[in-house]
Amino acid sequence: MTKRNLNIIYLAILFVFAILFLPNFALAQEHPNLILTKAGVEKIRAELGNVHLFDASLAALKKEVDTEIALGIETPIPKDYSGGYTHARHKKNWFLLQKAGVLYQILDDKKYAIYVRDMLMQYEKMYKTLPLHPKTRSYARGKLFWQCLNDANWLVYVSQAYDCIYNFLSKEERNRLETNLFRPFADHISVNSPQFYQRVHNHSTWGNAAVGMIGLVMNDQELIDRALYGIKDMNLDKTAKDDDGGFINKDGKAGFLANIEEPFSPDGYYNEGPYYQRYAMYPFLIFAVGLQNVRPDLKIFEYKDGVLLKSINALLNLSDADGDFFPLNDGQKGMSYYNSALISAVDISYYYGGHDSGLLSIAEKQGKVLLADSGLEVALAIKNGKAKPFDKKSINLTDGPEGKQGGVAILRKESIELVFKYAAQGSSHGHYDKLSYSLYDNGNEVLQDYGLARFVNIEQKGGGNYLKENKTWAKQSIAHNTLVQNETSHFQGKYEIGSKHHSDLYFYDDKDGEVQIASAKENNAYPGTEIHRTMAIIKNEKFEKPFLLDIMKINSDSENQYDLPFYFMGHVMKVNFEYESPAFSVLGEKNGYQHLYVEGKGKPSSEGTIVSWLGRNNFYTLTTATDTSDELLFTRLGANDPKFNLRRDAGFMIRRKNAKNTTFVSIIESHGSYSPVTESAVNSNSSISSLKLVHDDEHYTAVNISDVNGDEFMMIISNTDSNKTSPHKLQINGRDYQWSGPYHFK
Amino acid sequence: MTKRNLNIIYLAILFVFAILFLPNFALAQEHPNLILTKAGVEKIRAELGNVHLFDASLAALKKEVDTEIALGIETPIPKDYSGGYTHARHKKNWFLLQKAGVLYQILDDKKYAIYVRDMLMQYEKMYKTLPLHPKTRSYARGKLFWQCLNDANWLVYVSQAYDCIYNFLSKEERNRLETNLFRPFADHISVNSPQFYQRVHNHSTWGNAAVGMIGLVMNDQELIDRALYGIKDMNLDKTAKDDDGGFINKDGKAGFLANIEEPFSPDGYYNEGPYYQRYAMYPFLIFAVGLQNVRPDLKIFEYKDGVLLKSINALLNLSDADGDFFPLNDGQKGMSYYNSALISAVDISYYYGGHDSGLLSIAEKQGKVLLADSGLEVALAIKNGKAKPFDKKSINLTDGPEGKQGGVAILRKESIELVFKYAAQGSSHGHYDKLSYSLYDNGNEVLQDYGLARFVNIEQKGGGNYLKENKTWAKQSIAHNTLVQNETSHFQGKYEIGSKHHSDLYFYDDKDGEVQIASAKENNAYPGTEIHRTMAIIKNEKFEKPFLLDIMKINSDSENQYDLPFYFMGHVMKVNFEYESPAFSVLGEKNGYQHLYVEGKGKPSSEGTIVSWLGRNNFYTLTTATDTSDELLFTRLGANDPKFNLRRDAGFMIRRKNAKNTTFVSIIESHGSYSPVTESAVNSNSSISSLKLVHDDEHYTAVNISDVNGDEFMMIISNTDSNKTSPHKLQINGRDYQWSGPYHFK
Repeated sequence: MTKRNLNIIYLAILFVFAILFLPNFALAQEHPNLILTKAGVEKIRAELGNVHLFDASLAALKKEVDTEIALGIETPIPKDYSGGYTHARHKKNWFLLQKAGVLYQILDDKKYAIYVRDMLMQYEKMYKTLPLHPKTRSYARGKLFWQCLNDANWLVYVSQAYDCIYNFLSKEERNRLETNLFRPFADHISVNSPQFYQRVHNHSTWGNAAVGMIGLVMNDQELIDRALYGIKDMNLDKTAKDDDGGFINKDGKAGFLANIEEPFSPDGYYNEGPYYQRYAMYPFLIFAVGLQNVRPDLKIFEYKDGVLLKSINALLNLSDADGDFFPLNDGQKGMSYYNSALISAVDISYYYGGHDSGLLSIAEKQGKVLLADSGLEVALAIKNGKAKPFDKKSINLTDGPEGKQGGVAILRKESIELVFKYAAQGSSHGHYDKLSYSLYDNGNEVLQDYGLARFVNIEQKGGGNYLKENKTWAKQSIAHNTLVQNETSHFQGKYEIGSKHHSDLYFYDDKDGEVQIASAKENNAYPGTEIHRTMAIIKNEKFEKPFLLDIMKINSDSENQYDLPFYFMGHVMKVNFEYESPAFSVLGEKNGYQHLYVEGKGKPSSEGTIVSWLGRNNFYTLTTATDTSDELLFTRLGANDPKFNLRRDAGFMIRRKNAKNTTFVSIIESHGSYSPVTESAVNSNSSISSLKLVHDDEHYTAVNISDVNGDEFMMIISNTDSNKTSPHKLQINGRDYQWSGPYHFK
Repeated sequence: MTKRNLNIIYLAILFVFAILFLPNFALAQEHPNLILTKAGVEKIRAELGNVHLFDASLAALKKEVDTEIALGIETPIPKDYSGGYTHARHKKNWFLLQKAGVLYQILDDKKYAIYVRDMLMQYEKMYKTLPLHPKTRSYARGKLFWQCLNDANWLVYVSQAYDCIYNFLSKEERNRLETNLFRPFADHISVNSPQFYQRVHNHSTWGNAAVGMIGLVMNDQELIDRALYGIKDMNLDKTAKDDDGGFINKDGKAGFLANIEEPFSPDGYYNEGPYYQRYAMYPFLIFAVGLQNVRPDLKIFEYKDGVLLKSINALLNLSDADGDFFPLNDGQKGMSYYNSALISAVDISYYYGGHDSGLLSIAEKQGKVLLADSGLEVALAIKNGKAKPFDKKSINLTDGPEGKQGGVAILRKESIELVFKYAAQGSSHGHYDKLSYSLYDNGNEVLQDYGLARFVNIEQKGGGNYLKENKTWAKQSIAHNTLVQNETSHFQGKYEIGSKHHSDLYFYDDKDGEVQIASAKENNAYPGTEIHRTMAIIKNEKFEKPFLLDIMKINSDSENQYDLPFYFMGHVMKVNFEYESPAFSVLGEKNGYQHLYVEGKGKPSSEGTIVSWLGRNNFYTLTTATDTSDELLFTRLGANDPKFNLRRDAGFMIRRKNAKNTTFVSIIESHGSYSPVTESAVNSNSSISSLKLVHDDEHYTAVNISDVNGDEFMMIISNTDSNKTSPHKLQINGRDYQWSGPYHFK
């Protein structure tokens, strides 16, 4: 036999032994070993009292749990939707169980173990005979909660609690819990609810992690496999849809690994957007840590080229200067990296990733660490002065499992942040807003993305669930800063169509100190119409702050009406055109237009159009190269909103009728400031005196900018060749321009 | 001769000597002696480098002035309104001159004196031949600025600069400045502009102080007298009015002392309200300090029983938890005790007042001190750990020169602050809002007072001046949380009528731990109609937070339509009545109604009316005892506002038609919280199950409150006897109530 063959035999024998003895070996596995480990707990106990951030986090937790222990255990019969009493109580319980478990391990005080045990036993007693939750709205009803999703949340946390008191319980107690509570619980949310469990979706990620986590504690290989790979031999109706209008399982993929594989791009961008990434992050990472501890052989953190850790970096980059996530697709504003899921994420990323000292500064701001091995290490590193600022730079994140379905570009310069979305549909939480953008100045919205239409967990508003205006307004194209053709949404607002397409990056370049630029094309939103949008953040010494240049070139095989809205945040200061304030009228009938009032209607002056507003104590000016035949509209959200589900936000819109090929060119400047305390208005006027489209054909689009001091700037885009080194030559108004690469600015 | 006669002769001789020699003695007065004193400067120099807050304030000032010195002096020919370039530049200059003067004294560095001298000489050169300012809008045009008021601002600051470099200048230089600049400047804003100078008004206070300050530096007794007592023998047309619609001088009173005498109540409440008090505060106090230093014999800080220092305490109490002033009458929101006028005020109050250690904590928050004797003392006291929290309690401030023209009550309990206005008209800046209120929770508005309709100093918005909507909306009664009869404003919105009347306190009691209460009556706003409003902040253990109980009893000799609006801040969560969302309509034709859209129109259910909303992450609920015949309206501000001068704020209104005598009873609760980060909604429902008017006659009004746990509370108001000890007896629904004093709560 060759040496190679010997090796193979040797490996084969090893493999057989592994299969034979792994279960037995594993049966003897120690506890805790999921998030906390035995060794980690020892280290934590040794450091108690020495590491401020850790001690403070522990003290806060202890105070909370002690208060609740004093109040007693409550496990009411399930009854309410989100926001209602029984929902809130069981939600509180899952956190309390997990926290009490951690306290038992760290403080070695039996009262916490007893609390966990007693509550679990109450659940065991109730669950045995518990029917489906009485509320019927969900496509997959849970038992403790109205939807399986929340049952899965419960199990992800409670598995950790069980792990923490595993050794405290008698074998008989463990049997009771596993037989009457955990196993049937895991089955209900998986084999009994495949439409919830067997898909690629944040719901399923929770489901998979829940089943996997309890599987790891119970050392139940079947459950672990079900978690990693989905329910064996289960096939679902590929045309079925969930509550949000998304396909349940079009491709037949399922399981935790598929849920890593599919929604994350190689850059770590999560297809549903940052709000849902934040939500899915916790089960992704907590289960990954559990796997890392129990099944290090899986090398879960290296899976798909380390995408789980990359995704944390992507997610942090998808937040504004204050740490609030950009509300791409369905996203509730105000959700930020202060959310507890991000506390875990930051600590886990530091510990299992490259010990990036920038993460420590975020952990410092969060003011809390995970009470686990990773959290201790983070707190220690901060104590040792290792924290550095987390430096958010411009970044281009691809979308799609292979990074080939468009993406999101974030251009940053000084206080200005542009979020330019040219991604795929974003699953059932996606909005119909190809080539849309939002603009931020120092963490404040200058031009907003509306986000979702929902008051999450506020029972009074539709049970805390999605409101109907999420479909009638928030998802529609007109709710976004992008082009709308003939008052219809992209892809007719249909998920079946939208989910087949994505925009394409044309070029991206953030290497230049003066111009950071992203350019993308969308050819499917309106069949027969090609939209090419280029957005640049330009920093030039002639301007107080970096400004946004937006060039949107449209080629169509038909005549259309084009609407380009600007959802500015602030109070109108001044415009340069005449307009009427009509008796209040509603802008349209459907596709979101039915929610917009017309507050003003005018025609541009021959000089182009200027609108300035006062935002959060800063002045902003939109300068845009309009035609005198355009219509200019001031809009106000709130029409056909009898339940006050929408905010009464302002908008400005350019409407261009009977146009085929056309180009919109706009600049948005942030300038000056106003203080209501000093009452001084500084630099309250725009620095731009004119903005003109000076050349526009198939190959090139050129824009001339003049400032108030007579300085001139020219931006030329090559529309057909984005090669970085291609040489270009163009004559404009008798002057020759020569450059290489897809754009020229001077 | 008797001894008495001898004394008289002795005094007469002294008097003659005083008259003969005082000017000479005074000519030899030392400089600086206005705000800084020679002795004070020595002390400051000795402490440099030792007192952090003082050093930091000095460093900031030095940096600012050094930058400007490097940029050079600019004194453009006057041209613009507020917010325009020349306005802003001359405004900047006055601050720079004053600051550079201070730096010269403290740092003893000639470059600052040279800067002041050179700029003053440029002004001297320009002023000699300067015509009236070209903009004609003001009732009293200035020369450097469009209105005398700003010229006076300039002189108040520049006098200080002149004082600081007085000894640095040659006699010839001083002569030039005094002859060509200061004296004619003082004359222009006084004898040449009596309609500005010769009145009781914040404008005149600035004028008086400006003339007085330069008089003190120049040691010009005529100017000092003109400042203190007004222009001698000047009589004005008593029916003339100013730009804001106020009488210019109805009573013939004038001068700085009259300006202390008239607008301040004995409690230190300033009749125009806190926004203008803040504005007038600086000249009041700075000139007072100058007088205290140069003319200690005047005992200015003891004038009118020490009202100047009392007024600082009143002003600080007229701010919310964040230090923002309540926008009573014309007030721009966001103005706060961080304004520089309040930095002076706090330091001066500490130094010349009772060394109240609470003031030090405000100085700490301000992070700056006045670079003068007082500021040093404050900084030293803070350094020595003397700062204590400034504890704002409930306070009742009388209005009127003798405290007999109504007032403003502020009830505070935990995070809740109620501002209840039952004051006099408030001069030309007064609003027509008798018995109106606003409510705050932790510094956030729950029910707002609109404030003024103006973007102060923002040139784009009407030159930074009052907008026409200030009259058509902001001043109108319907813009406030008070009663409007037959869609007309109080006093028909006429200043002539309104300025003759005031509401009257009925009783005020903040001594009880559970109930803090204020009650006032208004009999003149609508002739033939008496309005009696009682507002209580009630803290009871059955409720999460203190709540507001509002009882408004109306007696009229005619049938009327009564509108009671609630300008709630936030997003509607839930109501308990049916309503329609009409095709957008405007509520009325005039008196402010023309600016309100109707967003919803309904009828109360038989249970009374409940409206809840989500404010800044807190829930609020209005529960009000309506009749089923009432109309309920949701309103939205913004109709007939073609220039976007108004905010698009929400309102809710109870409309009671064809009523004569009637009583409105309402409760506003703050409860629970919502966090967009944790997405948890806590205690999002009201604790009140019913609110009923159970007795209402001439003598007593009784209200029954039931909470969701079945607890019952009764509030009884004695409507005719407010004596604190009077015994009362009343049977309601067969039960006997006995108590003493104007109210009973149990």
